[in-house]
Amino acid sequence: MEQVIPHWLTKQANINPNKIAIEFGNDESVTFSELCRESKAFARKLASLHVKKNDHIAILSTNSFEMIIAIHALSYIGAVGVMLNTRLTKVELTDQIDRADVALLITTEALMKEKALDYEKQTTFATVHQQIEQDIPLSTEICLQSPFTMMYTSGTTGLPKAVVHTYGNHWWSAIGSLLNLRSYDYDKWLLPLPMFHVGGLSILIRSAIYGMTVVVMEKYERHTLYTLIEEKKVTIVSLVTLMLQQLLDDVEEGDLPETIRCILLGGGSVPTNLLHQIKEKKIPLFQSYGMTETSSQIVTLSDQFTLEKLGSSGKPLFPAQIKINHMKEDKVGEIFVKGPMVFHGYYKNYSANKESFIDGWFKTGDLGYLDDDGFLYVVERRSDLIISGGENIYPSEIEHVLLEIDGIVEAAVVGAADEKWGKVPVAFVVKKKETLSERDILKILDSKLAKYKIPQKINFVTSLPRNATNKIMRHKLLATD
Amino acid sequence: MEQVIPHWLTKQANINPNKIAIEFGNDESVTFSELCRESKAFARKLASLHVKKNDHIAILSTNSFEMIIAIHALSYIGAVGVMLNTRLTKVELTDQIDRADVALLITTEALMKEKALDYEKQTTFATVHQQIEQDIPLSTEICLQSPFTMMYTSGTTGLPKAVVHTYGNHWWSAIGSLLNLRSYDYDKWLLPLPMFHVGGLSILIRSAIYGMTVVVMEKYERHTLYTLIEEKKVTIVSLVTLMLQQLLDDVEEGDLPETIRCILLGGGSVPTNLLHQIKEKKIPLFQSYGMTETSSQIVTLSDQFTLEKLGSSGKPLFPAQIKINHMKEDKVGEIFVKGPMVFHGYYKNYSANKESFIDGWFKTGDLGYLDDDGFLYVVERRSDLIISGGENIYPSEIEHVLLEIDGIVEAAVVGAADEKWGKVPVAFVVKKKETLSERDILKILDSKLAKYKIPQKINFVTSLPRNATNKIMRHKLLATD
Repeated sequence: MEQVIPHWLTKQANINPNKIAIEFGNDESVTFSELCRESKAFARKLASLHVKKNDHIAILSTNSFEMIIAIHALSYIGAVGVMLNTRLTKVELTDQIDRADVALLITTEALMKEKALDYEKQTTFATVHQQIEQDIPLSTEICLQSPFTMMYTSGTTGLPKAVVHTYGNHWWSAIGSLLNLRSYDYDKWLLPLPMFHVGGLSILIRSAIYGMTVVVMEKYERHTLYTLIEEKKVTIVSLVTLMLQQLLDDVEEGDLPETIRCILLGGGSVPTNLLHQIKEKKIPLFQSYGMTETSSQIVTLSDQFTLEKLGSSGKPLFPAQIKINHMKEDKVGEIFVKGPMVFHGYYKNYSANKESFIDGWFKTGDLGYLDDDGFLYVVERRSDLIISGGENIYPSEIEHVLLEIDGIVEAAVVGAADEKWGKVPVAFVVKKKETLSERDILKILDSKLAKYKIPQKINFVTSLPRNATNKIMRHKLLATD
Repeated sequence: MEQVIPHWLTKQANINPNKIAIEFGNDESVTFSELCRESKAFARKLASLHVKKNDHIAILSTNSFEMIIAIHALSYIGAVGVMLNTRLTKVELTDQIDRADVALLITTEALMKEKALDYEKQTTFATVHQQIEQDIPLSTEICLQSPFTMMYTSGTTGLPKAVVHTYGNHWWSAIGSLLNLRSYDYDKWLLPLPMFHVGGLSILIRSAIYGMTVVVMEKYERHTLYTLIEEKKVTIVSLVTLMLQQLLDDVEEGDLPETIRCILLGGGSVPTNLLHQIKEKKIPLFQSYGMTETSSQIVTLSDQFTLEKLGSSGKPLFPAQIKINHMKEDKVGEIFVKGPMVFHGYYKNYSANKESFIDGWFKTGDLGYLDDDGFLYVVERRSDLIISGGENIYPSEIEHVLLEIDGIVEAAVVGAADEKWGKVPVAFVVKKKETLSERDILKILDSKLAKYKIPQKINFVTSLPRNATNKIMRHKLLATD
């Protein structure tokens, strides 16, 4: 049975027409009524470019008002937004666009030049704005089962896979967070994360559903974070560990502005000494656990438990469930998640979907355990996942590119500890061509991989440590580095 | 596709084990953890009485801790609760039990004696408590599409019909209210309405979903209302107009306690002079429009609009939609509603269901219009509905009983204005037996109709005013009275 609700932005514009929906650092802002009107206008202009229901429209952009308008516009047409990471190379982008069956790519002029994609069906936000508005019927309702966005994630199996988020996934994610963090009239949520990641996009959706003001950073900048929180009277901010560390360094002398009631932290674990610093400064930190597949946080630790449950990611949000798939009698097992915010499958990837779900539970690939009170402790992210400054790096993807290089026979990538980024990738390579140098390899990778994915070091080895089933034992490599 | 969430009470007991879930006037209280444990124990005892999944279990009770436990217990078994109005007569109750395919009736000892139903499959809360707990598997999840409760309502078509509420109806009703009224950690919602009506039951469900304390009145009493709000530091209270009037009379000298942030008003319109009194005293009144079929409020007017939108019921809740089905070019038309909190149908009543829905919209039978800002004005409830002290009275039901009396040929019931109750029913009767007196008729009605349904006056007339299509013109009768 179809689950239908009124279009969330139209609804919010009807309930709170004059409330500020989006605010930028430069004091530019729009109300819900303006945001709704602009998004509808953009949708009608897209119709001039023949964008129609169910089309896959790629968006390649850093955070901007244009990008927000475009995302909402797609919902008025019923088209699906394919969110692309601006840090990817031409090769990576071409591959993702290709596999997502994209009908049109919308980007900025700067990015169009920078990426120079050999792809005809691309346009810029500015060009769309020059189009004539077509008098097409716009969605007045949202069907929760319909797809809204797609985002790539890699996982352990090689090539990046596109996670399809339905409207329902986004809706339930927002409601799960609402039941946990609640929502106040005066709330302002600061969005310093890119909206092509689910952590950023989910804040935009919450804004439309809660009727909440969002303060958008076009680009994360260390030195404007504190100022923005203070000037805009921000109450909630979503950060990754690196940003939190930098924020704390900046407030060393003072305290955080009193308006802040929640720092929602995603993307990897927090060093214990940092947690003690947080407790000392009475910073309201909410650690969380989630992934693209769960439409952002699915497990969250309330601030009152920061020290009592040191190292825990918290409890699953109200509509969510987790369980540990135990091997033998180990306390630790694979984390399984379930709930209406969990995605239903990767785009056109039957084998990965078959592998990833069991009886309605999604197998995260991460390892963890639950304590007696039901708090989750994540022991190891998706076996080999490297989280570097909030970006997820999948070794398999880098290894795949390494193995395409002439002269390399074996390759393995692991995450090495790094004071600033948390983790950075390093590679171990078995070569058959003696003349192949680290510099040669890095030069090739440069055009094929986003900068943050390029190994900080290439170690040449004569063989890779493998176990009985021929699987690379990454922990042994880490010890060697 | 099934929409599954964790069992809401188990989940809340896990998140907020030590928070007070339910409080009574006598200072008795239970935490979410205790409420969960007791409800599960009750479910296991019900298994001793052979109650199983999908059974229809009638509950006949005034508000009590036992009743709350029983309602949650049914959700652990997956049985459906048939909520019966304690004010109904033996005849009415027997009919409702019969048509709802009830497997077991649970009631109090007092009500069992009072109603003296000729029905074998009945037991008391006390008897259930004496049973041995059976080790049966209890629900760990809730499927939103599954039915949870049934409640009778009459409508225009004669016999009362059973509205089936799914878990999803209750869930979405709670979320719709949450997005409007929001929820705070310190909230306490006072429940003075009977839980066999959806207005009362919905507060209990919100408690489990929000993790909110509910203060339960076992029976509404005028003189404890104010005291309870003050002593328990109540922040929200659901009232019907009669209760509000009495509350205002009681605070004539002073003000309402400062803790009150919302008086949610259901069940009929509010006289204008009362509204001005409310504004003067700065009482946070939220008028609302809803019915059993919409799982409580579906349209709500925020307090800041009390005077600006005088007489309006407000805007539809976030997940809800309304539209006016216009006849010709009239501004006023029938109110249609749509949304995931709207029920899917009456129990085993194909013809009523066929009549009531059109393209996914429920035809309320009420008349109203929308102003330019989208605010709803209800002009007339379901043509002939009489709201008396918060209880709905359907003339057709009383007329049906009148026509069964030997000597009556025609009957019509209308609502006459009453200072205390808002409206009271009065009857117009055409008799063929001269000796039949008002007293005779009232004596017969007494055993067949709940007290509040019995006409305040029987008017004997020689004929009823009918229009061309032979339909009784009720407005002409009102003028005669």
